[in-house]
Amino acid sequence: MRPTITAFEASPDRGQGLARDMRVRWALEEVGQAYDVRLVSFPGLKAPAHRALNPFGQIPTYEAGELALFETGSILFYIAERHPGLLPDDDHARARAITWMFASVSTVEPPIIERQNAVLLERDKPWTEERLVAIDGRIRQRLGELTNHLGGADWLDGAFSVADIMMVHVLLRLAPSGILEEYPSLMVYLERAKARPAYQRAFAAQLAVFEQSQA
Amino acid sequence: MRPTITAFEASPDRGQGLARDMRVRWALEEVGQAYDVRLVSFPGLKAPAHRALNPFGQIPTYEAGELALFETGSILFYIAERHPGLLPDDDHARARAITWMFASVSTVEPPIIERQNAVLLERDKPWTEERLVAIDGRIRQRLGELTNHLGGADWLDGAFSVADIMMVHVLLRLAPSGILEEYPSLMVYLERAKARPAYQRAFAAQLAVFEQSQA
Repeated sequence: MRPTITAFEASPDRGQGLARDMRVRWALEEVGQAYDVRLVSFPGLKAPAHRALNPFGQIPTYEAGELALFETGSILFYIAERHPGLLPDDDHARARAITWMFASVSTVEPPIIERQNAVLLERDKPWTEERLVAIDGRIRQRLGELTNHLGGADWLDGAFSVADIMMVHVLLRLAPSGILEEYPSLMVYLERAKARPAYQRAFAAQLAVFEQSQA
Repeated sequence: MRPTITAFEASPDRGQGLARDMRVRWALEEVGQAYDVRLVSFPGLKAPAHRALNPFGQIPTYEAGELALFETGSILFYIAERHPGLLPDDDHARARAITWMFASVSTVEPPIIERQNAVLLERDKPWTEERLVAIDGRIRQRLGELTNHLGGADWLDGAFSVADIMMVHVLLRLAPSGILEEYPSLMVYLERAKARPAYQRAFAAQLAVFEQSQA
């Protein structure tokens, strides 16, 4: 069944691929599953019809027949369980891939979001500069740990998996900060991921939505 | 196989059950799976032996034979997939439970952790009070949305599941703030969960570790 996902009508990142629908688009492209997109305005996110899909009023959501899901980790896992290529067959490797999915959103992403909040919501506060130093310290700790884990490996745990989609996209949200450049092996990891045709198709699709919104 | 988990040698919460090993203990108690606990000191968390289990140097971890996992979401899902009672059989209900697991750590927990960071790491800063107002606003937004979702239901999505363990424990970390009391139906949800014998056994077990550390 052809699923429908939701995305921003006009993404605040102006088509840089940082909005979370990118993760779902990328996973669907990896498995060759066609999909429809329903665009949602900012007021629409908080309207009852969208809240019925996601009580927290966020994008993306995923609908297929009677099923409605939210949270990119959950949507990507649902896709990965139902198509070959995004989760290892081996039980232990599969469990480790799920571990890295949770690590992406639960351990690596929070200080990145805290930075984004500090920059966006507290931009003009007298304390922003001092706080950014502290937040960036927490971000660098995670990036250092991730660098040590990756070593020279291509992907987080053996073969490319849905966990790499999650982690790569979480890291890409840091791109505007310039911090990533301090971690050359993470940059190589990100470039490896962005070179995948599925990533590029997904990126082009979300960019087309943004460009359309400006036309 | 009897698994081994890791926990703080002396939990900074002084036995209040707020450390994340509580989630794993609770899930294991729900399914009646005996387990061993290896206690880790603060320096031990950052030592290579522990980093080999969790590259980010955190507790809990989960070991069973050759398998080593971290991230509570992943550990709980692994347990839930291998024992009856913590995930629905129905495909759609199962996918929704996984959605709520991710929502717990990815959408509800981040502002709670941001509050904890503000209180612990920025305690004496001139801006702490003003920032707490903003953070508490973001927390209240999530608690309000969660309240609306729950309505009068006993659990997040039909029957009790591993997602309730995750969400309840995430919310309990807010207890010291006093904010939860503004949400009577969430308080009832938490009390319902804490009344479960498995929760109580898990709580007693982590408290015993803390008391031992003080003896």
